[in-house]
Amino acid sequence: MKVVADFCLIPLGVGTSLTKYVAIVQQTLQASPHIKYLMHSCGTNIEGEWDHVMEAIKSCHTSLHTRHAVPRIHTTVRIGTRIDKDSSIQEKIDRVKSELESSSSSS
Amino acid sequence: MKVVADFCLIPLGVGTSLTKYVAIVQQTLQASPHIKYLMHSCGTNIEGEWDHVMEAIKSCHTSLHTRHAVPRIHTTVRIGTRIDKDSSIQEKIDRVKSELESSSSSS
Amino acid sequence: MKVVADFCLIPLGVGTSLTKYVAIVQQTLQASPHIKYLMHSCGTNIEGEWDHVMEAIKSCHTSLHTRHAVPRIHTTVRIGTRIDKDSSIQEKIDRVKSELESSSSSS
Amino acid sequence: MKVVADFCLIPLGVGTSLTKYVAIVQQTLQASPHIKYLMHSCGTNIEGEWDHVMEAIKSCHTSLHTRHAVPRIHTTVRIGTRIDKDSSIQEKIDRVKSELESSSSSS
Repeated sequence: MKVVADFCLIPLGVGTSLTKYVAIVQQTLQASPHIKYLMHSCGTNIEGEWDHVMEAIKSCHTSLHTRHAVPRIHTTVRIGTRIDKDSSIQEKIDRVKSELESSSSSS
Repeated sequence: MKVVADFCLIPLGVGTSLTKYVAIVQQTLQASPHIKYLMHSCGTNIEGEWDHVMEAIKSCHTSLHTRHAVPRIHTTVRIGTRIDKDSSIQEKIDRVKSELESSSSSS
Repeated sequence: MKVVADFCLIPLGVGTSLTKYVAIVQQTLQASPHIKYLMHSCGTNIEGEWDHVMEAIKSCHTSLHTRHAVPRIHTTVRIGTRIDKDSSIQEKIDRVKSELESSSSSS
Repeated sequence: MKVVADFCLIPLGVGTSLTKYVAIVQQTLQASPHIKYLMHSCGTNIEGEWDHVMEAIKSCHTSLHTRHAVPRIHTTVRIGTRIDKDSSIQEKIDRVKSELESSSSSS
């Protein structure tokens, strides 16, 4: 089952500056097999098979807890699955841009 | 790694009445091993080991897609993990109620 | 426009014990006009007109920042609106429970 | 109170193809005063004063319900506020990229 997801990981108990931990999340994703990902300002798009995506997010929690001493983590995930057609991070963006262009040229 | 999570699953392409599908989610959770769960008005609290919790949510997607013909699903999950102390659905509620009682009795 | 929502507020920069702040959120909601709310283990259901619900959540942020010195806050909200029929925290729960009972009695 | 938020709006009861509605959301944001926004594959970053951001999201719901006959909408929002320093969509991205570059050059 293919997933296009978006997640936002918040480390707790490490103060208010989270940049260092967001960078570790990106590095953990880079080391995760079989997924695509793209960071934005409030989280990260992630795409792949269900198990690979969930394993990657779990790796972020495990790494922060055990190797970077983060005592508590709060993560929110949006998960999209579908069986009617294939989907990807790039296709979803392309379809909306195409729709916006066609609606502006027709008006 | 223990998780206290909360998830809300939205089936798409099946109209606006979702009660039937929320009931299937509850039945799928009931059949899932090693987790505790508690439905509320906008989702379901779920507690257990990371892999058991994620496997239960995956089972909800799989069951709705394959056995109930739901073409598309959008799920949001809040995931909490911590290594500083143990946590559970019940303890989290109890701690806040206790805090509210002590602050009202001291005022 | 009526809203049935669910929100989870996470204070940052105040350590890992959040019970005190969750209690303040509940007290702020109690003082908010025209809403109903019900805490669960991973957030709070909240119901009312859009503006009243959003004003209540804003009050939680404002109170924590200005009166309780919380430097940073991360909140997630699920918002449901519909024009096909009325909805409420209680009705949503009742409908699923009724569905679960009728499906178990018919099997 | 300044907000950096991220929201994902899901129209229900309109089938599984949501591109048209995502485009309407983008057009509604474009017409909303005093906010900045940036679409990604699973939602939209949005930045501005609390009231302006919430008003823009409300406009998306109102427009879809009343002018595009969407019967039901499910929206998830991540909201970040802070009083310790200023923040923006662009700064958050820049800080992480800078951290990633410095950590790769030091290794």
